[in-house]
Amino acid sequence: MRKVFQEELTQVGEQLVEISKLVSEAVEKATTAFVGADIDLAEDVIAADARIDFLQNSLDERAIDILALQGPVASDLRMIVGSLRMSASLERMGDLARHIAQLARLRYPATVVPAQLRETFKSFAEQDLLIAEKLTVLLETRDLEVAREIMKANAAVNDLHLSVFKAIARSDWQESPATTVDVALASRYFERFADHGVSVAQKVTYLVTGAWQPSAIEHS
Amino acid sequence: MRKVFQEELTQVGEQLVEISKLVSEAVEKATTAFVGADIDLAEDVIAADARIDFLQNSLDERAIDILALQGPVASDLRMIVGSLRMSASLERMGDLARHIAQLARLRYPATVVPAQLRETFKSFAEQDLLIAEKLTVLLETRDLEVAREIMKANAAVNDLHLSVFKAIARSDWQESPATTVDVALASRYFERFADHGVSVAQKVTYLVTGAWQPSAIEHS
Repeated sequence: MRKVFQEELTQVGEQLVEISKLVSEAVEKATTAFVGADIDLAEDVIAADARIDFLQNSLDERAIDILALQGPVASDLRMIVGSLRMSASLERMGDLARHIAQLARLRYPATVVPAQLRETFKSFAEQDLLIAEKLTVLLETRDLEVAREIMKANAAVNDLHLSVFKAIARSDWQESPATTVDVALASRYFERFADHGVSVAQKVTYLVTGAWQPSAIEHS
Repeated sequence: MRKVFQEELTQVGEQLVEISKLVSEAVEKATTAFVGADIDLAEDVIAADARIDFLQNSLDERAIDILALQGPVASDLRMIVGSLRMSASLERMGDLARHIAQLARLRYPATVVPAQLRETFKSFAEQDLLIAEKLTVLLETRDLEVAREIMKANAAVNDLHLSVFKAIARSDWQESPATTVDVALASRYFERFADHGVSVAQKVTYLVTGAWQPSAIEHS
């Protein structure tokens, strides 16, 4: 019985890793589509998001079954409840990658971002992809050094987000209202993606150390 | 033992109602501050959000204790897991009310919204407040007619959100880039608030009927 239970816990962990890999793939394609105005890649991301949603539901059902049938306590219980929360964050990261892809599709064949901000959004894309990839490693290894790298990338993303809003507020900003809105929303999507990544990293840290780090993470 | 357990479940339900009431209060003050450029009300909302976060954590801890100590199954288990999710949605609604208040504070003593959109945002405020108030009633009574009213208000909010983006895209839109971004973000905050309200309403519906209604809700 105990052995079956441990196997089930392991499977939940593996399913989190699987979702995390799909999120990496989604954000890599979405940001490439976004920066390079690639409609096929954008369509790929939009279509593939349903798979992430399906896997989240399936993980949640499995976690609830374990709660019902095994009645886990202590650290096992924390791990199951933590998994429910991490799967919700990963699912939202998938949604945000889809939002980025949808913006790329909406403006195709034009690019969403004007020339002056292209480098900024390339950096955004790099940092978000880095966060997604590190998250998979963190879920696999529980190496807290990786969690710290995620926090660092998130700080870089916050700086980029701020720089976009400063650029829009400058007197030499000449873009159309539609472009202005696109840029602001896209910047928020990139920033929220990173924030949810931090949220998952903090939950892993909590499960490993037992110590919760209070944070100013926004979940909305 | 069984009696204690039922009392604990009741307490979780009551704590959800308590959070829901605070969210109503927050969105009422935030939208009044937003529409009327009231800095004191805005500060109130920003300060009060910590209480919502605290209550969410305390509810989650209580729910996890129940899982550990009582090992609930079947509908009781669904109710506990559902409560964890509903508390997360309510906490995000509190964050969004805070974001709306923060925009009001940022632009004070000016109002965030230009004259031509003032009526639109008044309607937004009315619908979001209605959703928050109905949510408290729904959590107290589990009357599914109330859930339907929430869905209806959400449809109105989606129409308002669309109308804001259409206004920005029109050729006669003359506002500054900063105002354009404020309006777009504010519209998204109001729309996300309603969406999270629907998400809670769907979870209550699921707990009452056992039937999950697939939805296109965005959780990001």
